[in-house]
Amino acid sequence: MSDAKIRRPRAETPKGFRDYFGAEVTQRKAMLDKIAEVYHRYGFDPLETSAVETVESLGKFLPDVDRPNEGVFAWQEDEADWLALRYDLTAPLARVAAQYRNDLPSPYRRYAMGPVWRNEKPGPGRFRQFYQCDADTVGAPSVAADAEICAMLADALEAAGIERGDYVVKVNNRKVLNGVMEVAGLSGDDKEAERGIVLRAIDKIDRLGAEGVRALLGEGRKDDSGDFTKGAGLSDAQADVVMGFTTAKRETGADTVARLRDLVGASALGREGVDELEQIAALLAAQGYGPDRIVIDPGVVRGLGYYTGPVYEAELTFEILDEKGRKRQFGSVAGGGRYDDLVKRFTGQSVPATGVSIGVDRLLAALHAKGRISADTTGPVVVTVMDRDRMADYMAMVGELRAAGIRAETYLGNPKNFGNQLKYADKRNAPIAIIQGGNEADASTVILKDLILGAKIAQNATLEEWKDRPAQVEVPRSDLVAAVRRMLDQN
Amino acid sequence: MSDAKIRRPRAETPKGFRDYFGAEVTQRKAMLDKIAEVYHRYGFDPLETSAVETVESLGKFLPDVDRPNEGVFAWQEDEADWLALRYDLTAPLARVAAQYRNDLPSPYRRYAMGPVWRNEKPGPGRFRQFYQCDADTVGAPSVAADAEICAMLADALEAAGIERGDYVVKVNNRKVLNGVMEVAGLSGDDKEAERGIVLRAIDKIDRLGAEGVRALLGEGRKDDSGDFTKGAGLSDAQADVVMGFTTAKRETGADTVARLRDLVGASALGREGVDELEQIAALLAAQGYGPDRIVIDPGVVRGLGYYTGPVYEAELTFEILDEKGRKRQFGSVAGGGRYDDLVKRFTGQSVPATGVSIGVDRLLAALHAKGRISADTTGPVVVTVMDRDRMADYMAMVGELRAAGIRAETYLGNPKNFGNQLKYADKRNAPIAIIQGGNEADASTVILKDLILGAKIAQNATLEEWKDRPAQVEVPRSDLVAAVRRMLDQN
Repeated sequence: MSDAKIRRPRAETPKGFRDYFGAEVTQRKAMLDKIAEVYHRYGFDPLETSAVETVESLGKFLPDVDRPNEGVFAWQEDEADWLALRYDLTAPLARVAAQYRNDLPSPYRRYAMGPVWRNEKPGPGRFRQFYQCDADTVGAPSVAADAEICAMLADALEAAGIERGDYVVKVNNRKVLNGVMEVAGLSGDDKEAERGIVLRAIDKIDRLGAEGVRALLGEGRKDDSGDFTKGAGLSDAQADVVMGFTTAKRETGADTVARLRDLVGASALGREGVDELEQIAALLAAQGYGPDRIVIDPGVVRGLGYYTGPVYEAELTFEILDEKGRKRQFGSVAGGGRYDDLVKRFTGQSVPATGVSIGVDRLLAALHAKGRISADTTGPVVVTVMDRDRMADYMAMVGELRAAGIRAETYLGNPKNFGNQLKYADKRNAPIAIIQGGNEADASTVILKDLILGAKIAQNATLEEWKDRPAQVEVPRSDLVAAVRRMLDQN
Repeated sequence: MSDAKIRRPRAETPKGFRDYFGAEVTQRKAMLDKIAEVYHRYGFDPLETSAVETVESLGKFLPDVDRPNEGVFAWQEDEADWLALRYDLTAPLARVAAQYRNDLPSPYRRYAMGPVWRNEKPGPGRFRQFYQCDADTVGAPSVAADAEICAMLADALEAAGIERGDYVVKVNNRKVLNGVMEVAGLSGDDKEAERGIVLRAIDKIDRLGAEGVRALLGEGRKDDSGDFTKGAGLSDAQADVVMGFTTAKRETGADTVARLRDLVGASALGREGVDELEQIAALLAAQGYGPDRIVIDPGVVRGLGYYTGPVYEAELTFEILDEKGRKRQFGSVAGGGRYDDLVKRFTGQSVPATGVSIGVDRLLAALHAKGRISADTTGPVVVTVMDRDRMADYMAMVGELRAAGIRAETYLGNPKNFGNQLKYADKRNAPIAIIQGGNEADASTVILKDLILGAKIAQNATLEEWKDRPAQVEVPRSDLVAAVRRMLDQN
């Protein structure tokens, strides 16, 4: 351009997006691999749908989103369909189950892992692209499918590194809640809005407490910032019934079931829901999943509108410090439930389905908090360059190390300043630096510098234990690989 | 809506996109895991950038694309930036290298694997979302970095399952080609368009042959469909020089280098390029990578405009049958080169970089063609449901099998029709079906049906070898796991 100075593009990740480096990638991958192994053992097959879906196929099932296209990244094809990035892995599964219904096995057990995108206002720790890890069974009407997902979720958490006792999978049933709403006089199509408010209010009980939920069941609630949320407008008697449901949990599953049976009274739907919870508990007990891992808990409702039966949630029960240094329970890392109507959108025929989604970033954060991250973060052995004319010799060294399975690299920056090479090795977290100057080359030797030991000595130079262990050795060039291996084994 | 019938959404993958099922996912993953292991051993760290970039940061480096935003999926944020899905993994790397230049080690070796998106007209086998698998070194000016990438590419192909002798990595240098263009009188800013046409013409030599390329160097070329492509308009003498370059390959690397040195004559740039090729060959020889794996081949130019030095390409040398049943060489599965100006777009400072991109789908297709796909596709052991009231018993069986590490599942569809259950087991590729009816339950036994043996016998009922091996056994319930394991080991 002649009349304007060409502006350089900004080198910035778009707002609300982020990049993942090195260990962040390998640690997540290691965790997902372990979870996939459990899913595989349970007979689930992987499915990877395209990131892009038609907007009409996605529908609008995002919570609290009313306008079409809101909440998703969408664009229009030239005078054709609107396309969008998927916002979860369930909507694409519903599309696939409808599209391939004649080819897929039925029931169809599938797992999926990958990024999803939400066009939301970014905030601290709130990203517009994040990973989900889902497992669903499509075409299985029996609650045995829900029980299986709960058991698999428990196994997956343990495989990922969450110890038994540090998590609990809570199971509830929407039919029970809907039965309670019937008792409270909230059935019927004209009460859908009220039921939605009740559902979302109960879903927030951990955060708002009983009082806050009670306010939302009635006239409404003013939060700390002064914002007012309109309530469901229930009478005190109605609200009492609903609140009774949220506090129905008892010492044992059997007692909880008895209390729920009480609450749903004559509601046929509610009784069906209670029966299903009983069956789930029995099926899990038969496989050895006791209440130390999976419990019936009426406090769990899951916010999404599309659940139709059992709902479940995995909660981590240990405490961590929040950003203000206060102890709080880690909370939910996975949730799901039965949604019998999603495939029906496409086909007109109801297809039973149930499944769970693990919040990958939250589970990774939990593993970090518990020190259970396992991926290896050791850097490569760095072969330094003392004499740039002998680059072929250094490349040969690194070639031998790699051929022996040892992670290694030659320094490929400007070799002039040797200090920069050691700084580079430090930054790479290198365990060993290899040095061969002219003298060593003439003598057919190499020097191995133990950088891990060097760092330890630098931290505490007086420790006796290192007295006899040299931080640097000179070995015959022909012993390079063996000497590196010995030094690596020491660390 | 009251005045219009609500139309059901179509259950369709958007045009040009596709879904990957089961083995397609695990086979790709197994291949990428093996390649990642090689990259890791070479000291490369993973990087996962967001799928979304700002359009200004992406720039427009897609080949044959002139209009902004053409070729990418893009949309505008509310009155703010245009965003787009990445079209390759190199542009995001250039952005990252600029954005984090003070934090990253230098040189920075990184690998990346993931989907990229192209907004192109879909066609048979031509998708708008596909995987790439890249490795690049940023900040290394020396051709040792290029040599390293070539060696790593050879190792990665072998790790993935391509045997030595079935591939060759071809190396060339853009500086040599530019030197040849200088000799042909095609240097200078005003000849950029011609140079571009020459570059793209040579890149097509495998497809068009020498005659076709020659036509494109001159007036132009009419293809089989009658479409005319305008040529570079070179004189015969100029075209001779360029064509000499495309046929410069000789028996040995040394002879090829000598021939190239001849061709570039007095061009300083050309001689620099030839020297670099010689250095690369020497560095590779020092690591034991001979011409059986990596060769200097002036026929390789790579179409992309941004390469500034060495370019390389991995070609598979075995033949496959094309869609018309004709034998043809498999061809290219990976390519790359040195691009010293991509980071400069952001920072104004030149940053040397070199790297390779593996075409994941093509490499997978090659492994399929050679029968080198390794991922296990055995289905789960299927526990059938003879009596739905004893679901807990069946779930307990499957629980025991899973706890023993055996892939297993209970049939979760409607159990009424037992034939459907066996059909399901077939569709799942199940090795064994477990059956326990009332009689077996009373006797505390289970029946194991060997479905793999059953299928073999159905194919060839007379074979002697199966005479003594029963396709079905009844074992004590307590021996379930051991008996399943025995039967699996037989197959």
